[in-house]
Amino acid sequence: EIVCSLSIDTFSIVLRFSTAAWCCHSVMLIKKVGDELMNEFIQVLQYLGEEEDMQVVVEPDMYTRLAKSHPHFGFVHTYDENEVNRLGECVDFVACLGGDGVILHASHLFGEVIPPVICFHLGSLGFLTNHLFSEYRQALRNVIYGCADTSPCSIPDSFSAGVLITLRMRLLCEVMRKGQEAPVQSYEVLNEVVVDRGASPYLTNIECLERGRMITRVQADGIILATPTGSTAYSVAAGGSMVHPNVPAMLITPICPHSLTFRPVVLPDYADVELKIPEGSRSTGWVSFDGRERRELCAGDSVRVRMSRHPVPTISKEDQTGDWFHSLEKCFGWNERLQQKPLD
Amino acid sequence: EIVCSLSIDTFSIVLRFSTAAWCCHSVMLIKKVGDELMNEFIQVLQYLGEEEDMQVVVEPDMYTRLAKSHPHFGFVHTYDENEVNRLGECVDFVACLGGDGVILHASHLFGEVIPPVICFHLGSLGFLTNHLFSEYRQALRNVIYGCADTSPCSIPDSFSAGVLITLRMRLLCEVMRKGQEAPVQSYEVLNEVVVDRGASPYLTNIECLERGRMITRVQADGIILATPTGSTAYSVAAGGSMVHPNVPAMLITPICPHSLTFRPVVLPDYADVELKIPEGSRSTGWVSFDGRERRELCAGDSVRVRMSRHPVPTISKEDQTGDWFHSLEKCFGWNERLQQKPLD
Amino acid sequence: EIVCSLSIDTFSIVLRFSTAAWCCHSVMLIKKVGDELMNEFIQVLQYLGEEEDMQVVVEPDMYTRLAKSHPHFGFVHTYDENEVNRLGECVDFVACLGGDGVILHASHLFGEVIPPVICFHLGSLGFLTNHLFSEYRQALRNVIYGCADTSPCSIPDSFSAGVLITLRMRLLCEVMRKGQEAPVQSYEVLNEVVVDRGASPYLTNIECLERGRMITRVQADGIILATPTGSTAYSVAAGGSMVHPNVPAMLITPICPHSLTFRPVVLPDYADVELKIPEGSRSTGWVSFDGRERRELCAGDSVRVRMSRHPVPTISKEDQTGDWFHSLEKCFGWNERLQQKPLD
Amino acid sequence: EIVCSLSIDTFSIVLRFSTAAWCCHSVMLIKKVGDELMNEFIQVLQYLGEEEDMQVVVEPDMYTRLAKSHPHFGFVHTYDENEVNRLGECVDFVACLGGDGVILHASHLFGEVIPPVICFHLGSLGFLTNHLFSEYRQALRNVIYGCADTSPCSIPDSFSAGVLITLRMRLLCEVMRKGQEAPVQSYEVLNEVVVDRGASPYLTNIECLERGRMITRVQADGIILATPTGSTAYSVAAGGSMVHPNVPAMLITPICPHSLTFRPVVLPDYADVELKIPEGSRSTGWVSFDGRERRELCAGDSVRVRMSRHPVPTISKEDQTGDWFHSLEKCFGWNERLQQKPLD
Repeated sequence: EIVCSLSIDTFSIVLRFSTAAWCCHSVMLIKKVGDELMNEFIQVLQYLGEEEDMQVVVEPDMYTRLAKSHPHFGFVHTYDENEVNRLGECVDFVACLGGDGVILHASHLFGEVIPPVICFHLGSLGFLTNHLFSEYRQALRNVIYGCADTSPCSIPDSFSAGVLITLRMRLLCEVMRKGQEAPVQSYEVLNEVVVDRGASPYLTNIECLERGRMITRVQADGIILATPTGSTAYSVAAGGSMVHPNVPAMLITPICPHSLTFRPVVLPDYADVELKIPEGSRSTGWVSFDGRERRELCAGDSVRVRMSRHPVPTISKEDQTGDWFHSLEKCFGWNERLQQKPLD
Repeated sequence: EIVCSLSIDTFSIVLRFSTAAWCCHSVMLIKKVGDELMNEFIQVLQYLGEEEDMQVVVEPDMYTRLAKSHPHFGFVHTYDENEVNRLGECVDFVACLGGDGVILHASHLFGEVIPPVICFHLGSLGFLTNHLFSEYRQALRNVIYGCADTSPCSIPDSFSAGVLITLRMRLLCEVMRKGQEAPVQSYEVLNEVVVDRGASPYLTNIECLERGRMITRVQADGIILATPTGSTAYSVAAGGSMVHPNVPAMLITPICPHSLTFRPVVLPDYADVELKIPEGSRSTGWVSFDGRERRELCAGDSVRVRMSRHPVPTISKEDQTGDWFHSLEKCFGWNERLQQKPLD
Repeated sequence: EIVCSLSIDTFSIVLRFSTAAWCCHSVMLIKKVGDELMNEFIQVLQYLGEEEDMQVVVEPDMYTRLAKSHPHFGFVHTYDENEVNRLGECVDFVACLGGDGVILHASHLFGEVIPPVICFHLGSLGFLTNHLFSEYRQALRNVIYGCADTSPCSIPDSFSAGVLITLRMRLLCEVMRKGQEAPVQSYEVLNEVVVDRGASPYLTNIECLERGRMITRVQADGIILATPTGSTAYSVAAGGSMVHPNVPAMLITPICPHSLTFRPVVLPDYADVELKIPEGSRSTGWVSFDGRERRELCAGDSVRVRMSRHPVPTISKEDQTGDWFHSLEKCFGWNERLQQKPLD
Repeated sequence: EIVCSLSIDTFSIVLRFSTAAWCCHSVMLIKKVGDELMNEFIQVLQYLGEEEDMQVVVEPDMYTRLAKSHPHFGFVHTYDENEVNRLGECVDFVACLGGDGVILHASHLFGEVIPPVICFHLGSLGFLTNHLFSEYRQALRNVIYGCADTSPCSIPDSFSAGVLITLRMRLLCEVMRKGQEAPVQSYEVLNEVVVDRGASPYLTNIECLERGRMITRVQADGIILATPTGSTAYSVAAGGSMVHPNVPAMLITPICPHSLTFRPVVLPDYADVELKIPEGSRSTGWVSFDGRERRELCAGDSVRVRMSRHPVPTISKEDQTGDWFHSLEKCFGWNERLQQKPLD
């Protein structure tokens, strides 16, 4: 059982395992798609299954693959389509190998409830993949035995610490078709939902409403609704500010807006925004969710966007603010010193 | 007695007067400095004192002026220097005539605790001055009798509604001198605190720390720490996003940074930031608070900035989100339609 | 015969008709597509044909339409497909009714050599459509009789003045297919050529070369190569500066670049830029010319872009700089005064 | 004697020495102020004087210093105040050690006519200091013997090549006092002239005129008029585009403008701009030239800015475009690849 406590002082959320029972024995292990990182995957799999006695859940494709190459791995399990919704109940935490894309994949896999996620990068650090692969043993021990610091944590009964978690807000996006009351699809996005003009040469003309009230008409290549986590992804490329993941907010960032005054806007997390293709519009729009699942929106269709009640808990390396500024530096060269000086 | 209740649904805070006693009988009336708006001031003063039977507090200079021109105004009061700190206890609400500068002035006048403020504009609408002067009677009645809607509110015992308030976060800024433990001055700012290079041709080199940990070194004309309220003032001119006043956040916006990657950053409201002139620095910096009280910072000096525990409650016209988007349109021509089209 | 002279002092180019012969007797008249502006079109047509004795060339579709509705218009002519290339020799100037799209259409119609163009707007002023429709008689007389000022120009032998012209640079764009030496298509664009990712969720990865030397790799939604005329169209929406049409330059403006340091760049007009999809690229790109003629670019394909030797001469209203700043104000509200003031 | 020829094809200007006489025997050597780089200075001095038999001109302060430490350097010369204006005639070229500040210093020292300048950097490459100090012998030989390529140039009679030069436009800035016809001072700037609000909390309100016609009123922290060379200095920090030094243009870049539509503007080089403090203005402005010579401008005062007829010729390393893109990369990390990817 995982227990959360909120420190008023630092606003960090501390994850602990209950002392009552040894319940942390199931982990899901995911890697980026394709053949890459297979050796590293096996390495972590063996560590978790053989050294830590964990049951390890893998995706069906990977299960089939492992059944052939490593049939003796008795601790490996998978699930079928019907069980996807119950994954969140069965898995204590998720370990990912690869870039930020893997954690997005995990976020979509679990749908609503998702357990804490730890992410290892092998090449370049990302905002979500902040742990070094080379330190995976220590980092995983810290999660399994609930130990926050990075010094060797040999005594498994030191339950005092826990590992620090960032609760990353997701956006619940519901696609509404013209004339229908109920949404036809819904998605939970971790980074952003985008409505754009697709391959059409015509500017998207989108109505933007908040709680049913028209805020503005968007004439632009498109519009981004992003989480703070997504503020450093597509939104920043379109000119948005970088928003710390602990700020409860929703970002509205236009893409190449026709109007020079259409600056990016940051709304409270309780915002309830609808992006709608106007009733009589000749051109259509395209919506995509975390860069995937591209769908056409026709005249009268819309997507309604609110804060999801199911955030993604990611396991910090240092602490949320330290990790975040570290990522800004590594990923963007944020405020790296410029060489040129106007005057010596 | 003023009672606040938080609506979880809309996150708006509703101000009400208690039914137990007729306690709303004291208002402070302020107008912009100079000779302008004197007639309008007298007009509102008479309405409050003669028609509504309120005691009206004015600033000492204005009191002297009125004592000569309108000696028969028995309901006008003032205060002396020693009483300034107790103003917040004596005044039920504040009414301002003029631009956003008047409410900044009020914010500084009251120091810590400040009662709800209602602001009337006579020319151009501002972010804080959202009420029309021509509607002052109805708007003031709504405040005095606790009625939210703008329809005539003739029955003074309809206590159900109250008027909507935006609690505007302020920043507590403490000036620290080198080698001294205690701050030498402290200010509460409603818009922003700025450290810049003043008239010096040399770039400011400022250390930016969060909870004692170095975040970055700023090489720029200056750096702005702004509230969401201040996000539409100096910060937006320097490239910051527009942040809704209900987002609990602190903005870091550099002014003409040397590094192209130094994008504006939005931190949680619990951020605890220090801007410091480095120990061995040859050049100095200048700090100003809401554009006032310019002071030099020498090597080793710093200013520490945190969320103040004393926000400024401002009285909404419609509701917070409606008022805000309305101001964006009026003040910036936000997303006003562009005429040119690449192709017909 | 049209004669150009360059004034060193003001750098304006003055168009005159030779006194030797009355040769200005042929004009092409174009309006925006669709049924709109038909009455205005007939009005100008009659003025030119009946009052000024001009031969008026119209597009084939319009010719067919007029043949039915106004069979008595003996002064109306058209052309067939084979004659398009010789249009530039037969027409003394071009008059357009509608928005900036009509002049783009005219630019594409004529291919290489294009005579001076005068553009009338009926609704909103554009950068290229700077003449008021209500003043069409005087403006057309000025062109026909070579008179620059807007005072009545009754004496047709006042050849001294001429009308001021802006020579608007175009870009010659050649589409190169992998392994082929010769371009498969070529276009002349007045605003911009864009390579973007189309509907693909993957970022475009484009090699940008100048004179065969790699300048940079573009990871972005796309990249714009714009003329100064196009600087106020798509490029400005993507963050480019506004460049006066008389600056001999080519703009490189990235669309939502992944790197925060990829600021827009302005190159000399003799730049010779190639945008290439890398040899081994899995994803493709899409190129479009003035927002039209969208074509896919596959791995190894490229588009080569240089200054065209065939600029579009547009007829000024005031003078180039006056017209341009006037358009900035009208089209963008350029530097329109902001209402909010930090302090009164 | 130095001869220039313009290559139409590449638009590069080639500097050659005439074969008629061995006239290249005088060089001015400058280093950054202070005690740094003294050893390197002596090293180059000896190379020029002893190995290449050049007469070396140094600044008066340096001359006094060398007279004590190296009295045997017979080839060292200086000048007095009265001779400064004739320096340009006596010196064949200028060699600088240090950052971009040294070449700015040289630009101011020579006033109008300035011979070709070669600049060596010892730490970080700048836009103007593009030669490596470690290659000073070869680079200086190339200048002295007129050889462009970097391969050993042993035969001094290979006059064919010359070294490539960028003619860097300067701005002639004339300070006009209210009511006076003639300018009271004039400056030639290589980067930019700035009018700002200095230490005043009030926004500068500046009238911006072109050829006597009002373009706009600037409400901002200040306004920058920059050369293409200066486009990568202060102007880029304020949001301007990067303009290649061979584009004949003048940049207008506002600093933190109050209006969100006030985008940076690029004008032709024949622009004639005046920045004026309005007649009745209560607040004053401050003007500075390449970050120096700060002066107050009172109501009615102005600064008039045009292209100077005296550009600064700087000696390229590769060629102008190669050097420039190389500097963009080194100084800004221009379009350096970002690590984060939205999707793997």
